[in-house]
Amino acid sequence: MTIIPKGYRFAVAAAGFKRPDRNDLGLIVSDVQAAAAGVFTKNRFQAAPVLTCRALLAARPYARALMANSGQANACTGEEGLGNCRATLKLAADQAGLAPEDVLPASTGVIGAQLKMDKWEVAAPQLGASLGHAAPSDVAKAMMTTDTFPKLVTRSLDLPGGEVRVLGMCKGAGMISPNMATLLAFVITDAGIEPEAWRGVLSHAANRSFNALTVDGDTSTNDSLIGLANGASGVTIGDAKSLRQLRNAVTSLCQELAYRIVQDAEGGTKVAHISVKGAKSPAQAELAARAVGTSPLVKTALFGCDPNWGRIIAALGRSGADFEPDAVELRIGGVLVFEKGQPAPEDLDALLAPSMRHQDVEIALDLHAGHGAFTLLASDLSKRYVEINADYRT
Amino acid sequence: MTIIPKGYRFAVAAAGFKRPDRNDLGLIVSDVQAAAAGVFTKNRFQAAPVLTCRALLAARPYARALMANSGQANACTGEEGLGNCRATLKLAADQAGLAPEDVLPASTGVIGAQLKMDKWEVAAPQLGASLGHAAPSDVAKAMMTTDTFPKLVTRSLDLPGGEVRVLGMCKGAGMISPNMATLLAFVITDAGIEPEAWRGVLSHAANRSFNALTVDGDTSTNDSLIGLANGASGVTIGDAKSLRQLRNAVTSLCQELAYRIVQDAEGGTKVAHISVKGAKSPAQAELAARAVGTSPLVKTALFGCDPNWGRIIAALGRSGADFEPDAVELRIGGVLVFEKGQPAPEDLDALLAPSMRHQDVEIALDLHAGHGAFTLLASDLSKRYVEINADYRT
Repeated sequence: MTIIPKGYRFAVAAAGFKRPDRNDLGLIVSDVQAAAAGVFTKNRFQAAPVLTCRALLAARPYARALMANSGQANACTGEEGLGNCRATLKLAADQAGLAPEDVLPASTGVIGAQLKMDKWEVAAPQLGASLGHAAPSDVAKAMMTTDTFPKLVTRSLDLPGGEVRVLGMCKGAGMISPNMATLLAFVITDAGIEPEAWRGVLSHAANRSFNALTVDGDTSTNDSLIGLANGASGVTIGDAKSLRQLRNAVTSLCQELAYRIVQDAEGGTKVAHISVKGAKSPAQAELAARAVGTSPLVKTALFGCDPNWGRIIAALGRSGADFEPDAVELRIGGVLVFEKGQPAPEDLDALLAPSMRHQDVEIALDLHAGHGAFTLLASDLSKRYVEINADYRT
Repeated sequence: MTIIPKGYRFAVAAAGFKRPDRNDLGLIVSDVQAAAAGVFTKNRFQAAPVLTCRALLAARPYARALMANSGQANACTGEEGLGNCRATLKLAADQAGLAPEDVLPASTGVIGAQLKMDKWEVAAPQLGASLGHAAPSDVAKAMMTTDTFPKLVTRSLDLPGGEVRVLGMCKGAGMISPNMATLLAFVITDAGIEPEAWRGVLSHAANRSFNALTVDGDTSTNDSLIGLANGASGVTIGDAKSLRQLRNAVTSLCQELAYRIVQDAEGGTKVAHISVKGAKSPAQAELAARAVGTSPLVKTALFGCDPNWGRIIAALGRSGADFEPDAVELRIGGVLVFEKGQPAPEDLDALLAPSMRHQDVEIALDLHAGHGAFTLLASDLSKRYVEINADYRT
């Protein structure tokens, strides 16, 4: 049975923003005001719901509800888009007996189109009728676009004050190289925690999960990780140890969600775990890992189960990271492939073939230049990715 | 009829490095010592022929011959690879009556495998027998890997001192985001020019051609642009005006070669001309253009002929370039698509449909933040690219 944090209700509606007969609008309502925090895209173009969320959280770090829709991104839509976003908050708030500023919005879909307000108006009463009758997984499904499965992860913690529960959901699949967070992730807990500490927990978790994965190197205009902590468990996070436990739980939950995003990448068949160590700094390690993880040649080789390690080395070489070429060691699936500037004297194709067939492929680089380390989760690049994205709007 | 610079002979051989029965080894020999210059990859891992070329040119800025092979990159091959490279220079030099240090090498193919020296030894006499009987296009064909047509461009200049001829050839197709030059480009002229001035000409041309294109954002370990100027026309480049004319001719020749590389990108169906102006600096304009031109989402939309301009704006937004989002203007095929933070109030899909069907698609961004400008040629991303690169070694 799913662990569900206390004091939250869920609702969904089929508004038909893009396709008929599927839920594309979801709402999570806390019974009481909850500490609220968000981590948002660093894209210079920020969607109307991102701008709205940031303004609401800056004014007051508490909220009652999270709302997500798929099928319409409300990005690059100017003043009209901001006005529409505010109108949708009022529509949802009226149904749940809240004030509009109690609702934090998130949207995903095609960039540039204005919201279809007529569909919102028809959907709102549906949302109201559904409140308290939908499951968390219904909301996770409503935020899906090209995802092939909903992404929902839970944790339960035994703290000195009692049990608290954490539930997270997200959607992924494409335009995924989050910078601060992934496209639409919600985390809710019934722990009681001050907003500033909660913000710290979310940002710690985002940096170690959503910000350490790449599907296609594209950062969305709508990336948002938003979290509510409503205290309904009766357990308040007061001491440093409980805070650390909650932070670890939220981080591991976000890492599991992040893994599922890469696992369900558009057209994806692989999850590459690209770990770089021995870099001059963590930033240099990240630079190297991202060059490898976003290389179309590395990604197509992964798709082809081809242990074409030269492409990994070539991507590292152009990454901008600083190191001595002759000092670099590369291991794939634990097998030493490259050191001292040349391949290991083995039948590498034969040795690597089994690792390349796995869904999870371990690519480990040691630059022997310092102590910086970074691990990136990356998808492969398949024909299906191209099909999906060449035809996305049709 | 092809313009051929005076005083050069051409040779090819079918060594069978990767596939039988096709020429995969080419040689260009100047009758006399020629001013020689090269522009090479900035990848930290540099192939044996790149390291060898750089060492030869550092020792002496003159050479008699350019040699290229496809099917074997001789990259990431350590000391053994360097020794093999030197041995191939001697094999070719013996056939042409030259010293090994007169020959500048370039290689392309799979990274990591050692050269098949037995095949080189069998091929060398073929190369010798062919010398003077092959055409420039034969050499251009011998350097092809996944290219679907050879890339050869010529220019003829009337200078005060008389006529000089310039001939350039290159290969492209994949692992293309040159940083200083593209994978294997040769330029030869019969103008007489000092090595330092010739180096300036080549580097000027490379920055405005091969360094302003991207296929997949991957920079090869073998990228080399090498040029010879042998003076066989009897015309010496002495005055500033003639130098400028030669520089312009070589630059326009390299731009035409660069265009053909993008036109013949692996699986490519489009050539996007991504021009960014109004950036705070040329470097910022380049950052913006490269973010758009390497975005898998922009590239798949191009492949799908989908005027999905929101992806262009999203890529610009994450590029790291500095600008005000509301000041940005985007035009596609001359049609104003986006300004003041929102789409132009038109039926954009209908207006843009004709432009998207063309092979050449003009994407013009004005950031209104300064005077920096940069234009990048970029290919699209097709299912065929994935097929080619998932199966490259098989």
